[in-house]
Amino acid sequence: MTHMWLEILEQPKVFEKCLIQNEKNIRTIVSILKERNIRHVIIAARGTSDHAGIYAKYLAEIKLGIPVTLAAPSIFTLYNGNLKMDDSLVIGISQSGRAADVLEVINKAKAQGALTVPITNHADSPLAQEAEFHLDCAAGVEKSVSATKTFTTQVYLLAHLIAEWAEDEALKNELSKVPEIVQKVIDNADYIKNLVQRYRFMNECFVLGRGINFPIALESALKIQETSYVRAKAYATSDFHHGPFAMIDNHMPVIIFAPEGPTLADSMEMINKLKNAGADVLVVSNNAEALSKGDTSIEIPNGAGEFAVPFANAVVGQIFACSLSVLRGLNPDTPRGLSKVTITR
Amino acid sequence: MTHMWLEILEQPKVFEKCLIQNEKNIRTIVSILKERNIRHVIIAARGTSDHAGIYAKYLAEIKLGIPVTLAAPSIFTLYNGNLKMDDSLVIGISQSGRAADVLEVINKAKAQGALTVPITNHADSPLAQEAEFHLDCAAGVEKSVSATKTFTTQVYLLAHLIAEWAEDEALKNELSKVPEIVQKVIDNADYIKNLVQRYRFMNECFVLGRGINFPIALESALKIQETSYVRAKAYATSDFHHGPFAMIDNHMPVIIFAPEGPTLADSMEMINKLKNAGADVLVVSNNAEALSKGDTSIEIPNGAGEFAVPFANAVVGQIFACSLSVLRGLNPDTPRGLSKVTITR
Repeated sequence: MTHMWLEILEQPKVFEKCLIQNEKNIRTIVSILKERNIRHVIIAARGTSDHAGIYAKYLAEIKLGIPVTLAAPSIFTLYNGNLKMDDSLVIGISQSGRAADVLEVINKAKAQGALTVPITNHADSPLAQEAEFHLDCAAGVEKSVSATKTFTTQVYLLAHLIAEWAEDEALKNELSKVPEIVQKVIDNADYIKNLVQRYRFMNECFVLGRGINFPIALESALKIQETSYVRAKAYATSDFHHGPFAMIDNHMPVIIFAPEGPTLADSMEMINKLKNAGADVLVVSNNAEALSKGDTSIEIPNGAGEFAVPFANAVVGQIFACSLSVLRGLNPDTPRGLSKVTITR
Repeated sequence: MTHMWLEILEQPKVFEKCLIQNEKNIRTIVSILKERNIRHVIIAARGTSDHAGIYAKYLAEIKLGIPVTLAAPSIFTLYNGNLKMDDSLVIGISQSGRAADVLEVINKAKAQGALTVPITNHADSPLAQEAEFHLDCAAGVEKSVSATKTFTTQVYLLAHLIAEWAEDEALKNELSKVPEIVQKVIDNADYIKNLVQRYRFMNECFVLGRGINFPIALESALKIQETSYVRAKAYATSDFHHGPFAMIDNHMPVIIFAPEGPTLADSMEMINKLKNAGADVLVVSNNAEALSKGDTSIEIPNGAGEFAVPFANAVVGQIFACSLSVLRGLNPDTPRGLSKVTITR
């Protein structure tokens, strides 16, 4: 049993602990946000943490109407730029809490008087120590280099922060269903593991998602890359019409997240277009018609709401990647060329 | 001779016309920006135009310290979100001026009283007609589906807008050298065309760039994808350490933009890391040491300054993609599955 697999399985239980540990801090942060009438959010993160940031961008812009800027850390670290952040909430996300460039963004923001909130899985890390209000994934030690439970808890914390800020009880209710739907996906792991056999000799694939599921496509592609060395490339379904679609030829594997909700019509259009172009399409969905269109399909649970669904999709991607890695005789815990702590300057 | 090739060659001349046609509008826009004390920019764009937007994000954040948000159009078109844009400059970029989602962002921004600036190559398009201050690429009709001169003029207009706003004479001086360095790259086209022979049977590659050259890596990968159906994937050099590096194995072709300036040290580190991992590295640079490290190299002109260099790199990418397409017996003007006007809803 790999660490990655065990850490995937831990997720339903981790959410509860994570929420209990951070509830008070989230309420305090939101009271300050409202007091200061903050109207802009800046998020600094890299890799997997950046994907959590993109989920937060969608959710905050939809639920709060507040523009979210994803920071380009090199502005600070290489170009000596001086971004005006004093009227912003500045969030830094790093599993290890040791990403030097994220730390630099948080330090500069703090010096300007911005409200700074780091999200890490290490309360004793430089990033966690630096800021007033640390949000702690509280996911326990993550031994696999390939992040799973720290990703979903980052997303969970961000979603709860936004729900509290937006005073959105419907969203809170959706989030309360996350442990349950993630457990259902895990209960379906044998099905996914078996399906992965089909992809044993896949060299490359595309992973598509629209709207709030776009960051999950990015994260799933990254998981497949780093555990299985498959050239997996993610696109927003909408962007895939531009240019990248030209790369589709016969038998190209494409994984598409196509859940019910406002993005379904677009996803269906893309599935049909892909089928016409001869692609081999794996549909991940909770919609019967979408599922029926795929060459293969993975059903995700229904009834959780569109902002909880990405958690189910993320765990599908994790199980897929981990199973594929093991099937290919690799070890997902120790990808070649990578280390657990990435300190980009 | 393909349209794409002819349109690449036109570029040095197109810049001058573009600037003359827009100088007055740029000055008027900047006077309003200053009057209203605008402190936030939102950019809506897709595909190639989005890459121009990313260049502008870097440049504006470095030169103005103003956070730039790249809009996720689905917030408006699918999720019925209501982003607060009244205190922002909202820029919509679309070659055709007919991207429905970009138009929707501009319309919503205008309704809120935001200053809206569309950048298109069609003054009679819906997007150009909608807003107060249209910036016109004035690049002449672009017949190739694969955009070249409309991309570089979009970037040119954005850079001039930022230079005027920042009252940055050094930047204006850099930009005045763009036609000359682009001409020098074109004068080197035979060398690039000959070098491309080596990549005749390449199935996939990575394209890397750091900081202000990251959007050029994205754009070059897109050109290679859509003209030659090679699975080209772009990353920020900094992000490539996270996860994606695991995909590097022996003989993997990697194109890296590694110009002199603040990003060179990081680029050199990545070149060495790639070489150690057995990758086949094409270095695009104006630095002798970086050039000497590559398995192959393309020299770009010196002395233009780090914010003008991306124009030279972009044209290297265009010439590479167009030459590769023709070498592979394809027609870069009419990629399969694509059309010139992409109207994402």
